[in-house]
Amino acid sequence: MFRIRSVAIDTFPENTAYLPRNDSGYGAEQFQALRKIEICRGESSILATLAIMDDEHLLQRGEIGLGEQAFRRLGLPEGTEVSIAQAKPPASLDAVRRKIGGNSLTDAEIAAIIRDVARHHYSPMEIAAFLVACAAFMTTDETLALTRAMADVGTRLTWDAPLVVDKHCIGGIPGNRTSMIVVPIVAAHGLIIPKTSSRAITSPSGTADTMEVLANVDFSAERLQAIVAQENAVLAWGGRVNLSPADDILISVERPLRIDTFEQMVASIMSKKLAAGSTHLVIDIPVGPSAKVRSQGEAVRLRKLFEHVAAQLDIVVDVVLTDGSQPIGRGIGPVLEARDVMAVLRGDPDAPADLRDRALLLAGRVLDFDPALPGGEGRQRAEELLDSGAALAAMERLIAAQGARTDPPAIGPLSHEVLALRDGRITAIDCHLIARIARLAGAPMEKGAGIDLLRKVGDPVQRGEPLYRIHATSQTGLGFACELASEASGYSLAS
Amino acid sequence: MFRIRSVAIDTFPENTAYLPRNDSGYGAEQFQALRKIEICRGESSILATLAIMDDEHLLQRGEIGLGEQAFRRLGLPEGTEVSIAQAKPPASLDAVRRKIGGNSLTDAEIAAIIRDVARHHYSPMEIAAFLVACAAFMTTDETLALTRAMADVGTRLTWDAPLVVDKHCIGGIPGNRTSMIVVPIVAAHGLIIPKTSSRAITSPSGTADTMEVLANVDFSAERLQAIVAQENAVLAWGGRVNLSPADDILISVERPLRIDTFEQMVASIMSKKLAAGSTHLVIDIPVGPSAKVRSQGEAVRLRKLFEHVAAQLDIVVDVVLTDGSQPIGRGIGPVLEARDVMAVLRGDPDAPADLRDRALLLAGRVLDFDPALPGGEGRQRAEELLDSGAALAAMERLIAAQGARTDPPAIGPLSHEVLALRDGRITAIDCHLIARIARLAGAPMEKGAGIDLLRKVGDPVQRGEPLYRIHATSQTGLGFACELASEASGYSLAS
Repeated sequence: MFRIRSVAIDTFPENTAYLPRNDSGYGAEQFQALRKIEICRGESSILATLAIMDDEHLLQRGEIGLGEQAFRRLGLPEGTEVSIAQAKPPASLDAVRRKIGGNSLTDAEIAAIIRDVARHHYSPMEIAAFLVACAAFMTTDETLALTRAMADVGTRLTWDAPLVVDKHCIGGIPGNRTSMIVVPIVAAHGLIIPKTSSRAITSPSGTADTMEVLANVDFSAERLQAIVAQENAVLAWGGRVNLSPADDILISVERPLRIDTFEQMVASIMSKKLAAGSTHLVIDIPVGPSAKVRSQGEAVRLRKLFEHVAAQLDIVVDVVLTDGSQPIGRGIGPVLEARDVMAVLRGDPDAPADLRDRALLLAGRVLDFDPALPGGEGRQRAEELLDSGAALAAMERLIAAQGARTDPPAIGPLSHEVLALRDGRITAIDCHLIARIARLAGAPMEKGAGIDLLRKVGDPVQRGEPLYRIHATSQTGLGFACELASEASGYSLAS
Repeated sequence: MFRIRSVAIDTFPENTAYLPRNDSGYGAEQFQALRKIEICRGESSILATLAIMDDEHLLQRGEIGLGEQAFRRLGLPEGTEVSIAQAKPPASLDAVRRKIGGNSLTDAEIAAIIRDVARHHYSPMEIAAFLVACAAFMTTDETLALTRAMADVGTRLTWDAPLVVDKHCIGGIPGNRTSMIVVPIVAAHGLIIPKTSSRAITSPSGTADTMEVLANVDFSAERLQAIVAQENAVLAWGGRVNLSPADDILISVERPLRIDTFEQMVASIMSKKLAAGSTHLVIDIPVGPSAKVRSQGEAVRLRKLFEHVAAQLDIVVDVVLTDGSQPIGRGIGPVLEARDVMAVLRGDPDAPADLRDRALLLAGRVLDFDPALPGGEGRQRAEELLDSGAALAAMERLIAAQGARTDPPAIGPLSHEVLALRDGRITAIDCHLIARIARLAGAPMEKGAGIDLLRKVGDPVQRGEPLYRIHATSQTGLGFACELASEASGYSLAS
């Protein structure tokens, strides 16, 4: 038996436990060789990675130190006696090994894996093994099972309305921040649109990152429902609501590995929509040579996968294939994108027209779900709500309801302009490369970091004129971004 | 700039760095979200996982704490000023992503991955991604490139002899500790056999684990060469010699995930043989329903892969397919296996006959590499050397040269007998299950833990008679092992 002692070390997202090297009875090296131990008392138990403390002042004989995550997740007071054991690997790892071996998994096997993931019983290494094995191949049935399993382990929101709409873009197009325009338009129309978003996975900003520039996005499920009751809408981060906690854990491994398969994408998106109680959903799939989906053929495969899974889950989907040939809007990165969104909502004359158009297209498709509206009039209705200022008013109410940010972050003060190396006309902008440069600059962690595009496809440019401006808040970030931009700007020019 | 401070925490095998939460200038959360930072001064640099210290007494403002691994690997004194930056992911990760995407990699891509792995630039998560992606498929050319790349990043041993022989079993058969008999036979004959082994990967004991019961196995390359010069042989752990440091790191991830593909097996084994300077190699592939290789067809595929890679590397191989239908010998686990090995070498009348036969078969094939011996006389010569006591004498000299263990571990004092549930004749013993039970009992970490088989295939047994005895050194280990054994003993009986 060991007594718990809290150790003020934050090893997010992992649980860490500390044992003195020379404690009696247990061979610390033995446990450490296994890396993971189980700490338990009665019904409470957690798994933790073990580290050995050689400083005798930090832990007394008979104590086990728990890092901040481990202490909080175990939820027992300091001094409580606990027992420790070699962690048995989660039983569901056998299914992961079967998947690595090229087999398809049953619904029950997938459910068991996801339950163990949600309980933090998988290490990042084990999660990576599962994700990469699934990336090799995954059947439609497996994708559906994964979707259901992920929704089942989280909170489920329910709404007292026949129609709960949502809109989701699969991402990959920098600056494509349409949700923050679509949601106020739809709310102004009167449909319920409780939009929860993740933070950026592989991109320089997600809707939650950008909305956070303007307002609080971090709510409990109760608070979220209260905001929707009042405003028809919310633009929230989905993490705290815990709609798909397993997905959040999977994403923490997908992000650094940049794994982004169709199957995992569909399961991730649809599990969250299912948990969020959506009944009708517009999905935006941008298609372009540097987008996530690079051809019409791929787009159709992805569309069908969404439609198949949605049908099994009784969710109505409308999948829209859009032009993903270049970034949307000008700003890339949370602060710069928020600036563009507000410019469109305010109807500023120099607001990015492509962002406005894309948002109106998608808002129109969402409004077309409303049985009260004559067929095909969604787009026109969306335009009216935007141009009349009704959408802006809805957004301002929403910001107030969510809690306006009192110290809005500014655009990164350090900047560098990337210049055209020759005269010509811009023929292409590489979405993937521009996103990487913006991320190196610090986005989305540094809200003010990112890229401001000064030229778009079709624009003429002369040698020495700026193509875009990199913004950063640290010299390190600016340096990394400029280094990559000087290797490849992401712009193609033709005479 | 931060000043280094050593932090007495052992987070083997990972580097860990600690920053105070509220230090000025750097956003600790920002770095932490990226998990990995690069710490450098001039040419010295390491990557480390970042943890945040909330205890103000442990780190002063302006200090960065380095855990034991990180401090040692950076190799700079305390107080040295270092700079830190977001770790750029290793460039070779792009190749890992291509592999996840189903592509074959070039020799240069594989070499770059292995160099980065050997430099500790990959996290366990990233290593898992590489291994699982390779497990999906790997071409023969990729396997060869991986083998060469792994040998290239380690120490290369060279020998002043035309013939440097070795013997390797792919494993999977509990108790199959033939190397410790083959090596003294071959040494007594006069061939050079510098045998380096890994510790157990997925089994209850490796040759290094078992030899360590009798003697030191941990040598520098110089010491190893001195022992071979004196005794013709060595039975050493390969880890410290650093023959294939990348492989050791890969194995630290393969072990918990129990990944064991043919391609990774061949690359792992052949890279170490190449680095160890072997010219002639006998490879033992046991085939059986619960062995690593389950059918003759699989065995032939593996044999051809060994032969192809060996030919490209100018190593002569003789691949022997052996009976892998049940464990070899009686003891399973380091101490129990060492007991059996010494019984065979001493010629004890009750020494396990199957272990003796298997060792003689393999030693004979190794001796057949000797051009001085008439064709086909290897086996007979091996038998002479064993029965005359020459092999025992060679083993005793080898133990003395390596340094006999002064405090040899004992058989685990806690034990439990697993009994037959009915009368009958034993028709099969599940190697995989028996290995798992022995591991749960604590082997190989606990040297005395394991299983003593009291009945083998073909033996009659009556209800209530013992099939095998589980030995453990802790109640926890005994409990885990008994739990699994009570679910499934691993023995099949027929009337």
